[in-house]
Amino acid sequence: MIAQTSSSHLDALLSQRARQVSPRPLLQGMDDAGKRISFVFGFPDPASLPADEVSIATEKALAERGRAALQYGDNAGYSGLIDALREKLARDQGIVAERENILVTAGGSQAIGLLLDALVDWGDTIASEMPTWLGAVQAFHNVGANVVSIPVNEEGTDVVTLERELAHLRSQGITPKFVYAIPNFQNPTGVTMSLQRRQDLLDIVRAAGTLLIEDDAYFDLRYDGENLPAIYTLDDSQSVVYMGTLSKTMGPGMRLGWLVGPPALISRLTALKVDGGTNVFGAHVAAEWLPEKLLPHVDRLRAVYRRRRDLMLAALERHMPPGVTWTVPDGGFFIWVTFPEGIDTAAMHPQVNELGAEYLPGPTCFADGSGPNQLRLSFSFAQDEEIDDGIRIIADVARAELREQAR
Amino acid sequence: MIAQTSSSHLDALLSQRARQVSPRPLLQGMDDAGKRISFVFGFPDPASLPADEVSIATEKALAERGRAALQYGDNAGYSGLIDALREKLARDQGIVAERENILVTAGGSQAIGLLLDALVDWGDTIASEMPTWLGAVQAFHNVGANVVSIPVNEEGTDVVTLERELAHLRSQGITPKFVYAIPNFQNPTGVTMSLQRRQDLLDIVRAAGTLLIEDDAYFDLRYDGENLPAIYTLDDSQSVVYMGTLSKTMGPGMRLGWLVGPPALISRLTALKVDGGTNVFGAHVAAEWLPEKLLPHVDRLRAVYRRRRDLMLAALERHMPPGVTWTVPDGGFFIWVTFPEGIDTAAMHPQVNELGAEYLPGPTCFADGSGPNQLRLSFSFAQDEEIDDGIRIIADVARAELREQAR
Repeated sequence: MIAQTSSSHLDALLSQRARQVSPRPLLQGMDDAGKRISFVFGFPDPASLPADEVSIATEKALAERGRAALQYGDNAGYSGLIDALREKLARDQGIVAERENILVTAGGSQAIGLLLDALVDWGDTIASEMPTWLGAVQAFHNVGANVVSIPVNEEGTDVVTLERELAHLRSQGITPKFVYAIPNFQNPTGVTMSLQRRQDLLDIVRAAGTLLIEDDAYFDLRYDGENLPAIYTLDDSQSVVYMGTLSKTMGPGMRLGWLVGPPALISRLTALKVDGGTNVFGAHVAAEWLPEKLLPHVDRLRAVYRRRRDLMLAALERHMPPGVTWTVPDGGFFIWVTFPEGIDTAAMHPQVNELGAEYLPGPTCFADGSGPNQLRLSFSFAQDEEIDDGIRIIADVARAELREQAR
Repeated sequence: MIAQTSSSHLDALLSQRARQVSPRPLLQGMDDAGKRISFVFGFPDPASLPADEVSIATEKALAERGRAALQYGDNAGYSGLIDALREKLARDQGIVAERENILVTAGGSQAIGLLLDALVDWGDTIASEMPTWLGAVQAFHNVGANVVSIPVNEEGTDVVTLERELAHLRSQGITPKFVYAIPNFQNPTGVTMSLQRRQDLLDIVRAAGTLLIEDDAYFDLRYDGENLPAIYTLDDSQSVVYMGTLSKTMGPGMRLGWLVGPPALISRLTALKVDGGTNVFGAHVAAEWLPEKLLPHVDRLRAVYRRRRDLMLAALERHMPPGVTWTVPDGGFFIWVTFPEGIDTAAMHPQVNELGAEYLPGPTCFADGSGPNQLRLSFSFAQDEEIDDGIRIIADVARAELREQAR
């Protein structure tokens, strides 16, 4: 009541960003997560989160460096974590980075937020794969970015469309502030970009005089095939900013991610980040955990998620009516499902909810709300024994819809 | 080298914010903190940080709620911490808040950053006490705010100047987006705002149709006298946003603070904060620690900081040449020193550094760089036995400067 009477007073004080934002936060009611068979969010398997290891790492970090772990920290991040990340990046990703190339962030979310703060003024143009990570979709929206949508096909970013769109922008005198892409097990399509496509994408970005933001959140979670080189490692022109995170391995609750990029950009981002250090306590704990515990933990995770992916693919085969297609990801958390035209995944969601399952309607993953007949399934969170039931519920509702339409 | 060759390419892509920011981050080389006798930062006493208690709280939180503590969290913050904060606020501050009034933030830094994102477009006007918290000074600068500086006198915000400045703005059709004030043990002056002044400030803010941001970072650390009511509790018009933090009690490394305000604003801030939950792991640990451990810990801290304040005041009496004045704070971390005109605290700092001490030059605390003959001393971080030496070093350098000038 009171909130309503005074809201006009408040409204007059709001910024463009606050007026633009949808007042419904992305993550709400998290305490209730898991009441349905949930294929919605890219949440790690709860049972696999390494609580005991984190407990031991915390005890050690606090005993050895408690005064630093509970104090303010460097804006760039705790140097011990930066060094642990440098080792991990060199070993796993083949990325050789100096300290000044790295910025520790509060997950990929703060990373994308900082990049937007540093690169985008209201109304500026960016280019991004669409569909893409819904956190990025919302973040682009909140800062008033003009988003040029680039489709994703079976080899990754559709570079033909990208090149055409960039030429069109150039004819208007516009250089987009960056191109955003997720080369491995793309969120939400599950597609992995081919090596040739990575090289082509980099060439196009360089020729356009812009930056590539390479979001590699799912790198560690490959279930089939060999790793492909990070685009960052193909570049010698400081045109790529590489994003990574501990959210899919150690746990999202740590809120720790990182950027690797040109020192000239990293230093600006570090200065913009007036934050007393990112999550200093968590960073000290992660620095303790990372060197010895990451790889064995990732091995365990791969087994869990590979199994769940296969369960979900089998359930899709078993239950989905003809005319429905889906992607087969080599890693990550997501399968992208396309229904025949006419199916509205947002409209059928309440019925699926009522029957006890949930997914992410496709339009959520597009800046322009397209993809009405598509949806994203995450196979990371629901338990093995729930997967078949959940897929059956979705398939049944879709089948009824299709029958309805045929009549 | 490479960074330089490509920096023009990068420069063309930067936002207004990134072009505005000083490329030197606020907190750099934190791992080296404490090499000199340091009166620079508002850092808690390292020996008082409750590492053992945090270790125990972590073990408990992870054992009982590890799956939630390591998972994504609500954008508004972990509900268990919000409830613990509601109890603390009601008990200590007399602030009665519902869950929807509260947003958990990564310290006061994220709180002020979010408020700026939600209220200030580039070039918008705000009003703030000056001198003030240097984190706020930098944050205001980074978003291109036009800052109207309001002095602080012995009763707090100079409301006569504020009223005159607001009238002047009104004559230009400008409503400032907010007024920023620190009523308790102000950073950097140490001044506590009188009750009458709090009421006057609120009346002026309301009449102007703007918001008051009441930053109460040091509330828990009062060494003399009785608590005065938070301005938030004097208001029934949803015109006040109240900021608090665990940085000065549990420890800055936790990176946890909070905002209390009108739900209509809190919900916007929550939605703008696309961050997967603020520091979820730390929030679960803090929720475990806060209910039983805060008050006894604060008692211990008060004893330490009261003693250090008194040591510093005695050292100032003992060493400072005539004509130097300083404030006597009832709480918090800071003493504000004013030298005779002609003394340049920034210019004399390198010499003080060389002799083994450091402080914060006054101009750092002003949006317009004024206060050349002033400096901030923090008595929280240096050890008891260092304080006299450190003050003597500063006094000696200042005395030599004054002599030089007299010649």
